[in-house]
Amino acid sequence: MSSLILALDVYERERALEIARETADYLWAIKVNWPLLIGSGLGIIPELKEETGLPVIADLKLADIPNTNRLIASKVFEAGSDYIIAHGFVGSDSVRAVMELGKTIIVVEMSHPGAREFIQPVTDGLIELANQLEPFGVIAPATRPERVSYIRSKLKPGIKVITPGVGAQGGKVGEVLKAGADYIIVGRSIYASDNPRESARRIYEEVKAWS
Amino acid sequence: MSSLILALDVYERERALEIARETADYLWAIKVNWPLLIGSGLGIIPELKEETGLPVIADLKLADIPNTNRLIASKVFEAGSDYIIAHGFVGSDSVRAVMELGKTIIVVEMSHPGAREFIQPVTDGLIELANQLEPFGVIAPATRPERVSYIRSKLKPGIKVITPGVGAQGGKVGEVLKAGADYIIVGRSIYASDNPRESARRIYEEVKAWS
Repeated sequence: MSSLILALDVYERERALEIARETADYLWAIKVNWPLLIGSGLGIIPELKEETGLPVIADLKLADIPNTNRLIASKVFEAGSDYIIAHGFVGSDSVRAVMELGKTIIVVEMSHPGAREFIQPVTDGLIELANQLEPFGVIAPATRPERVSYIRSKLKPGIKVITPGVGAQGGKVGEVLKAGADYIIVGRSIYASDNPRESARRIYEEVKAWS
Repeated sequence: MSSLILALDVYERERALEIARETADYLWAIKVNWPLLIGSGLGIIPELKEETGLPVIADLKLADIPNTNRLIASKVFEAGSDYIIAHGFVGSDSVRAVMELGKTIIVVEMSHPGAREFIQPVTDGLIELANQLEPFGVIAPATRPERVSYIRSKLKPGIKVITPGVGAQGGKVGEVLKAGADYIIVGRSIYASDNPRESARRIYEEVKAWS
């Protein structure tokens, strides 16, 4: 089984479905974000699943009070999403509201410069929160393999580590997998390539070689 | 001018438009959240504006990396939203990405129990971030007037304080306005009332008496 996730950050429904179809053979799952969901409606989720047979991860970065998180998550799970990504920093009750409805992935670290201000100082607390709640997985940045390795070492064994930032953002497949990532997320290097299928195949082979 | 904001947390387009029409005379603005936006599409924003002539605040609680915040915000501002609510927790670059596109309101404190874990310990830092970036306003919970008063005292004078939690959640109009709130957000006490127009009028009169 592949451990490659496609970040399908294109915003036209037709283009999204086309790239998903072309690359599905090499993927474990497809990740969608708000721009595609608001451009195409939640109906894009069942369409992607039907076209590819793959799970869909809704990268909502949910960060609201428990009741609002619950309302948003229930609509997105009902649409067919298999996983939802939620922020841990809003607290365990907000995350629990999502987990009660379906499989959840918690953000425990981010790698953009602004993440140094408030997120990175509390990564240990966010890992602790994940260990208490035992979600499906956590998000940790592939651009900092030493942090992936740190997070893996602190995290309960059953919780998956899922890493965005491989490819265009600089994360290296081999380094990130060696650091303990279970799944890697690749976006631009696949969807913005001249030949998305061939790019997905190449990254898939690289992942296989390292797994 | 009213300083009352309606949190329009109903999820059927028709019902949303009906309540907005009935209550518009007593409102400064209408706040919409993701459940209505994904249920009705972004088209609900221009429809609400056209029906009421009021500004719309999109309560997205944006909390992604700068580029993704920018993509989401650009679609929502283009749809006609006048203000977007973003989290300060993800850092100043992520907030700045939204502010470059339109008027922004930053969350500096939340009042659900889970907010005690990571948000409340850094409220001072989030206020500092707001003072540096000078957004239109900040969000601070009406359920804790002493915190509204603290945040107001630390915040640059031009930045508005906008407070959810009045009414069903327990916040009192008079206390919150005395504490320094510029705008109060009321949801359930209006939209879930038997007579939304009459409830909005009553709260509007109360706000006027205290202003």
